[in-house]
Amino acid sequence: MIGRFSLSLLVGLLPVMFAPELSAQTLAERLGYPPGTRLIIVHADDLGETHAVNAAALKALQAGTINSASLMVPCPWFPEIADYAKSHSDVDFGLHLTLTSERMYYRWGPVASINKVPSLVDENGYFHHDWEHNQHVNPKEVEIELRAQIERALAMGVRPTHLDSHQYRLIMNGKELFDVMLRVAHEYKLPVFVTRDWFADHPYLQASLGPGDIVVDHTVTIEPDVPPEKWAEFYLAALKTLKPGVTEFVIHPGFDDEELRAATRERSTWGSAWRQRDYDFFSSDQFREILSQQNIKLITWRELARASELK
Amino acid sequence: MIGRFSLSLLVGLLPVMFAPELSAQTLAERLGYPPGTRLIIVHADDLGETHAVNAAALKALQAGTINSASLMVPCPWFPEIADYAKSHSDVDFGLHLTLTSERMYYRWGPVASINKVPSLVDENGYFHHDWEHNQHVNPKEVEIELRAQIERALAMGVRPTHLDSHQYRLIMNGKELFDVMLRVAHEYKLPVFVTRDWFADHPYLQASLGPGDIVVDHTVTIEPDVPPEKWAEFYLAALKTLKPGVTEFVIHPGFDDEELRAATRERSTWGSAWRQRDYDFFSSDQFREILSQQNIKLITWRELARASELK
Repeated sequence: MIGRFSLSLLVGLLPVMFAPELSAQTLAERLGYPPGTRLIIVHADDLGETHAVNAAALKALQAGTINSASLMVPCPWFPEIADYAKSHSDVDFGLHLTLTSERMYYRWGPVASINKVPSLVDENGYFHHDWEHNQHVNPKEVEIELRAQIERALAMGVRPTHLDSHQYRLIMNGKELFDVMLRVAHEYKLPVFVTRDWFADHPYLQASLGPGDIVVDHTVTIEPDVPPEKWAEFYLAALKTLKPGVTEFVIHPGFDDEELRAATRERSTWGSAWRQRDYDFFSSDQFREILSQQNIKLITWRELARASELK
Repeated sequence: MIGRFSLSLLVGLLPVMFAPELSAQTLAERLGYPPGTRLIIVHADDLGETHAVNAAALKALQAGTINSASLMVPCPWFPEIADYAKSHSDVDFGLHLTLTSERMYYRWGPVASINKVPSLVDENGYFHHDWEHNQHVNPKEVEIELRAQIERALAMGVRPTHLDSHQYRLIMNGKELFDVMLRVAHEYKLPVFVTRDWFADHPYLQASLGPGDIVVDHTVTIEPDVPPEKWAEFYLAALKTLKPGVTEFVIHPGFDDEELRAATRERSTWGSAWRQRDYDFFSSDQFREILSQQNIKLITWRELARASELK
């Protein structure tokens, strides 16, 4: 009996141990979907950064073609989106935890007092443009700043459904920073955007996560190697070959107007035309049609959180 | 002899004591202009606040129809204008010392650490939207913040020609705040925009100023009681009836685009259409023609400062 039990236990563990993509089904199953169901979150990043990003994201949210987004609390246009969030409490807004100010002509700094987070700011008091390899970012200061961002959002009437990390800074820079985000997230009972797609490159992610944490199965985001004329083709291929489970499409809609062109003019990656292309594809009939044709369902962070033990 | 000497001293003082408009000539005369000369500074406020304001002001500066401007260091678009100032060191840029964040959907906070200037910020860490009558603004904190703004500007390559006060907060709110601005200005050897037009309502201004301080004779700024269709008429009348001496036209050019409309949408005063009207008038042939017709000369703060003992 013991032998048989052990064997069945071992067999039961096999998918988890050797085939992480099978355990991907767990989240969808916990949400009540039959095996094989393909679910996507169409998630707009960077709300609050500029008005052109806010305007495009709100239009797409209202049209229903994107269904989730996250907000940059330190940015100057955050009050606009917080005001909207306050009167649209059903919208799936997370916080896009922000520790960099990556543009050249348009910049922002921390929510916390600058003298409490000296490792996060440059000599002029803005968040660093980038993190150099030898940049010492103090995890205690990161924690102070993350709490300040969440507290400002709450004070301004936002009820976030999730947390994620601007430029993946808190995901890709080692266990210590990831653990800070995870600890703060647990305290505020908010899920963090993590996908098992990242586990191979960053094993500490999986090691830090507990059974109550939500792990999205896959993520899709367009990269600079896709030429502008192949934009729709890239997304259509991703949707046609979508794997079962929950996939987050991380997109960057925005209107290609004077403000956004000026704010992003030093480089084209994630720039103004890029964001207009994202807006255009995800507002297109093509996108609606392929969802229907491929029987792909939309899901939000609010729904994911309901299915977990976090909420 | 003593009697005669006293009498001549008294006569000498008479213009200062009883006819401040006569002493107005002093500045123009010190600059080498014959009595009766009419000089104007066409001064754009609020650079750095939004891209639409930067773009309009830079276009008008390059066209030569405005010839001076001041920069809001705490605002997110300050880096764009600082970058321009660095490579255009001849442009007449002052600092528009800023202690309020008067819009609703687009906001900014202090340059200094928030915990050093608690009386200047609201519960979310932005500068107050407005100063209530019973608002206690701590002059020591004002001084910390003014220094922080000047130091950031210097560190980012701006060499300011003058200082002025956003929304006249440091002019109209009592001797204590004005003296802070004046003390900091003296330390950095920068002239402060003060006009004798304000002396009657705010006698402490004149009382605080010393012989080395520059006093502009008059100022003209358009107010909300002028209907949009009377914009040009207002400015033309002001130019036709211009008094001798130095007059600063405080104007607010901006492009009436998506960004500026969104940033100023809660009220029309000093809003997007207002700023477009200012841009339009001061870029018009009408404006150039009346300057020529009326023999009005342009002057900058750099020139004023050269004439004083400050520089």
